[in-house]
Amino acid sequence: MASENVSLALLHGSVLDRKGRVSVTSVANMDIHDVARSARTFGIRRFYIVTPLAKQQTLVRKIIGHWQEGYGAMHNPSRREAFSLVDLKGTLDEVIDDVACRSGKRPRMVVTGARLAGPLISPSALRDEFKSGDPHLLVFGTGWGLAEEVLARADIQMEPIRGMGEYNHLSVRSAVAIVLDRLWGRENCVQ
Amino acid sequence: MASENVSLALLHGSVLDRKGRVSVTSVANMDIHDVARSARTFGIRRFYIVTPLAKQQTLVRKIIGHWQEGYGAMHNPSRREAFSLVDLKGTLDEVIDDVACRSGKRPRMVVTGARLAGPLISPSALRDEFKSGDPHLLVFGTGWGLAEEVLARADIQMEPIRGMGEYNHLSVRSAVAIVLDRLWGRENCVQ
Repeated sequence: MASENVSLALLHGSVLDRKGRVSVTSVANMDIHDVARSARTFGIRRFYIVTPLAKQQTLVRKIIGHWQEGYGAMHNPSRREAFSLVDLKGTLDEVIDDVACRSGKRPRMVVTGARLAGPLISPSALRDEFKSGDPHLLVFGTGWGLAEEVLARADIQMEPIRGMGEYNHLSVRSAVAIVLDRLWGRENCVQ
Repeated sequence: MASENVSLALLHGSVLDRKGRVSVTSVANMDIHDVARSARTFGIRRFYIVTPLAKQQTLVRKIIGHWQEGYGAMHNPSRREAFSLVDLKGTLDEVIDDVACRSGKRPRMVVTGARLAGPLISPSALRDEFKSGDPHLLVFGTGWGLAEEVLARADIQMEPIRGMGEYNHLSVRSAVAIVLDRLWGRENCVQ
């Protein structure tokens, strides 16, 4: 299933605000926890929190430290296990460089979003892509989604999650969980 | 797909703590938001927050009011739409009574959990159950999952979510999102 060749980035810069302007969002503590736990569950290689703001980076470093080697790590071993995947970077380029450095090859970039249009790939087709063994980076945006400057760099756009109607306002935590389950949940494999 | 006959309850009483003791958890604000948004996305009829604690009920009522008719409702119409499904009850019995009152029939109770054993039903089999048109109630536990006293009352136990290994520590927010997507995500319908 090769999810070990797939990393995940959660962007807090180069994202849209509610009016569609390119902006920067704050890192939500619960995003780090939820996405780390989902990433660990589905065998993702590494989970990058990406924020350009120095103060936010300091805060995120503190949270990561607490759960990787501080009191939290002792207190809750399963959370420590999830946090072992978590890394912090300032920009998407730093993430790409880090993946390239770890895997010997630049990752192909897969973007996600509720309003993506244009050539879209289904989870099953993306699973086939991953079989190449090449590194891939799944990119999720906070706020109102990824800015055009990020989408323009994508190699692959993933099919948006659709529910029962037109409402498409899942939290990014929920969207990550659903995307990873669609890609690697065992239920999907046996159906 | 009949998700309109399915309601969802998130229990904060009759759940387990990390040592497996029956206990009560605090309501997390983000749980209300995330589960409401997922419930709205997948067409769930009603989402019940269940807590036996009077002080927690007061807090939850304040949050619900803010997003159903207060400043939050004006400020963020899509969040208001999600919160229109949210209700507050003190016990599981009150939830069952409310569903029975609204739909004219007592709901069949479907429990979820990472460690369920015994006769388990798959999402596709559960979708078939729902086709009867009978009301169903999906029950999720916070903390370390639902207590035996809740499981013993269940009509149906749902197959746990499994990822790539033995790690099974998703947040309840992520678990709800995945379960609803497995039941009603359009990707599942077309596969």
